[in-house]
Amino acid sequence: MKTNLILVNNDIIDPEELNVHPFNRGHQFGDGIYEIISVYNGKAVNAEMHMENLFNAMVQIKIPGFYMVEEMVDFTTRMIEAAEVTDGLLYTQVTRGIGPYELDFPEQCEPELIMQAVPLEREKLAALRETGVNLMTVPDERAVKCELNTLNRLPEILAKNKARVGKCYDALFVRDEKITEATDSAFMVVKDEMLWTYPMKLGSIHSNETRQMIKEKLAATLDMQVIEKAFTKDFALGAEEAFLCGPRCEILPVAKIDRRMIGDGKPGKMTRQLQEAYESYVRELTK
Amino acid sequence: MKTNLILVNNDIIDPEELNVHPFNRGHQFGDGIYEIISVYNGKAVNAEMHMENLFNAMVQIKIPGFYMVEEMVDFTTRMIEAAEVTDGLLYTQVTRGIGPYELDFPEQCEPELIMQAVPLEREKLAALRETGVNLMTVPDERAVKCELNTLNRLPEILAKNKARVGKCYDALFVRDEKITEATDSAFMVVKDEMLWTYPMKLGSIHSNETRQMIKEKLAATLDMQVIEKAFTKDFALGAEEAFLCGPRCEILPVAKIDRRMIGDGKPGKMTRQLQEAYESYVRELTK
Repeated sequence: MKTNLILVNNDIIDPEELNVHPFNRGHQFGDGIYEIISVYNGKAVNAEMHMENLFNAMVQIKIPGFYMVEEMVDFTTRMIEAAEVTDGLLYTQVTRGIGPYELDFPEQCEPELIMQAVPLEREKLAALRETGVNLMTVPDERAVKCELNTLNRLPEILAKNKARVGKCYDALFVRDEKITEATDSAFMVVKDEMLWTYPMKLGSIHSNETRQMIKEKLAATLDMQVIEKAFTKDFALGAEEAFLCGPRCEILPVAKIDRRMIGDGKPGKMTRQLQEAYESYVRELTK
Repeated sequence: MKTNLILVNNDIIDPEELNVHPFNRGHQFGDGIYEIISVYNGKAVNAEMHMENLFNAMVQIKIPGFYMVEEMVDFTTRMIEAAEVTDGLLYTQVTRGIGPYELDFPEQCEPELIMQAVPLEREKLAALRETGVNLMTVPDERAVKCELNTLNRLPEILAKNKARVGKCYDALFVRDEKITEATDSAFMVVKDEMLWTYPMKLGSIHSNETRQMIKEKLAATLDMQVIEKAFTKDFALGAEEAFLCGPRCEILPVAKIDRRMIGDGKPGKMTRQLQEAYESYVRELTK
């Protein structure tokens, strides 16, 4: 995969050639939104759905829709080809463009769309799936509405760093004593052979395609029931299995939370079945 | 004032000449912090205190301190001279620099400091002081910790826009039924001839130099008492006077909140005294 190419408003160029203006509101305020798309076998997974998400997010933060969904889907195809992506991720961000330094929207704005290919470290993931990962809980002090993928990610960056310093793979956010999600993936536990996860409708977690696939496709295939209900850390510690899920980590077993073991600390049976089902499902989708 | 100059890591250049890298973490994650400094009479107000704030904010989000406070104070002098600022603002932001697309801090980072001069529309402010401004309350859905000036400002941008659409000057954030602050200024009311404002220690408001000046200098000069205690919208509506304060708006009387008048809706006596005291104080500081 070539990581030295980006797509900027329709052109594919070397990132060094792009002059992001210092007064771009993305750079000054995080005034923009993003979307991540999985690529397997050189094909984008549900590109249209993702670009509809991106378009809707633009509408929500009132960035004028300067590209149609179909055009943005076309960008994914062009980018995959140009950057020679087989398995990886496409990251797309849209910022409101350049303006004078003030919170008010600029009177006229030319939004900026940037897309880049991001490697998915599949070997590293495969190794982590064998051992499981350790997590550290941190208070969820992010903005209340997290379902929108905004460029305001400093609380997640600081939480991730705190976890890394504590020799953990990631941080697990806790809001009102309930586990919401990790810094860039959703969190599920297996209890009484059912899957439990924080409800989307409470608005405190990001939309997450892997979570959605599990809920709408994979669980049914494997005859598993999904319960969307907020739960505490104690509940998670008493679970049989736990895992993270998201485009970046796929389905990754969790061994410990705050140094305390989940089950016997080994990757669980249902987690493994879900990862296999995920693998088959995305391979089928991108055949 | 010249707005076509910026200071970037020690050099003063045309903003068009700066190549902000598209993978700059400021642009991708809002991974950085900022500080605003008032300039009167061609002199920065409390530049050293502000640059200490900026330095401390860098420490808090773990951006390596690549400039000493003294150097950054020197930048303000150079920038004021180059951009010919008499009365205005200096905006400084520091981002973590360039990195691969992931939340983890990059292994090596070269932080980027950008400073720009921002006009203070003094005539417009003078006119607004005569009429007072109208505000609209909105739920405070920002990240819990606001005292740090981070580049994650989308909730403030959206609140400001909502207020503007509703023909108001600004939005007033309400968290747990208490008024915290406006999108880029603090909020105070006068009740029983005392000044009431949301307490800094609760962490839900930005640090604000004008608020601090009122609390530590101006109020005492005018024999006014400041009470830092959270209060509701109803309390504010029953107040004698209300005003916004901050480097961008100085001290600005509030006529209405959610279309309901404060007092007789005219700029209050104590608000006016504070604005005059502010004016003299900063003129004295920058003589």
